[in-house]
Amino acid sequence: MLLYDSSVSGNCYKVRLVFAHLGLRYERRELSVVDRSNRPEILSELNPALRVPTLILDDGRALAESHAITWYFAEGTPLVPEDRFERAKVLQWLCFEQYDLEPTIAVVRFWVAFSASPPPPAEIDAKRAAGYRALDVLERGLAGVHYLVGGRYTLADIALYAYTHVAAEGGFDLSGYPAIRSWIERVAGQPGHVLIGD
Amino acid sequence: MLLYDSSVSGNCYKVRLVFAHLGLRYERRELSVVDRSNRPEILSELNPALRVPTLILDDGRALAESHAITWYFAEGTPLVPEDRFERAKVLQWLCFEQYDLEPTIAVVRFWVAFSASPPPPAEIDAKRAAGYRALDVLERGLAGVHYLVGGRYTLADIALYAYTHVAAEGGFDLSGYPAIRSWIERVAGQPGHVLIGD
Repeated sequence: MLLYDSSVSGNCYKVRLVFAHLGLRYERRELSVVDRSNRPEILSELNPALRVPTLILDDGRALAESHAITWYFAEGTPLVPEDRFERAKVLQWLCFEQYDLEPTIAVVRFWVAFSASPPPPAEIDAKRAAGYRALDVLERGLAGVHYLVGGRYTLADIALYAYTHVAAEGGFDLSGYPAIRSWIERVAGQPGHVLIGD
Repeated sequence: MLLYDSSVSGNCYKVRLVFAHLGLRYERRELSVVDRSNRPEILSELNPALRVPTLILDDGRALAESHAITWYFAEGTPLVPEDRFERAKVLQWLCFEQYDLEPTIAVVRFWVAFSASPPPPAEIDAKRAAGYRALDVLERGLAGVHYLVGGRYTLADIALYAYTHVAAEGGFDLSGYPAIRSWIERVAGQPGHVLIGD
């Protein structure tokens, strides 16, 4: 398999982390998250949204969107619950991540740590405030539990961990989020864990 | 079952449309999308994101996020493909909808048609331009096919249809999107179809 990848993208990291847990072998091809000028040429036939991660299966078919790729491989493994309600709860967290957490925490991190032309400070501050609201939701979701769904490590934890554990790179202070901080340690302590920079 | 609902929300409409197709009975409780002051009181124990749709199952358990709710009920029906790759492709479109289409088309529609305090015109125009880019992706996805995945009507069509078919309420002109326009007619012609205002 061939993964169109970015070593700094949390969305790509979700795929790499799932592949590491499942022991899957694949090639990586790095695309820039800053200079995206070559994306139409490389990705237009594969992923209409022109984003990484985009995966080419061994039979040549392409799959995009981090949660679709990870779901494809994690179905039937302990990373996706067998129980139908728990499976829907995993999806609920994946949707929350794509709608509330990624567009705030990942975007602020990109502006602060990677972008050559970030927006004005007021816009960054407003987006960071929205990011904290997403962290508030995650903190409540982790209150009194070790993992987000069903008491076990699942795709929900992987999806939410990807950008949350590097939120400090966007200037987020997690000191007021004790449940998130101990959950980050639990996720990082999973057998087969790999780092975002690996 | 009890659905915390909004009659104008495309996200709630996805749930109502799936329930109509599957012949499921449920109660609806309308929440305002403009005055959200009562949401913490009503939803905080049920959905940490305080959004509609939120569904209470007959056993009292709560499920949130339109795509998680619809997936829960559509799994095992023709609305979710049996083939693993096609199932992942449905998820790919659901992710695209939540990340690219809903935050642009639905937000502009809300500002233009429902909000008491919309942002300045320049901000609306920028968001509308992003919405057109999402429509471009959808148009390409529908080129030469009748439905988004596997040649059949699935959850992907329902999810993308919900806000696309009312895009004109946000000032979007679909005349340049022939594949989208004929697909909208095909979706509306499905047996068991209900309207967003039903």
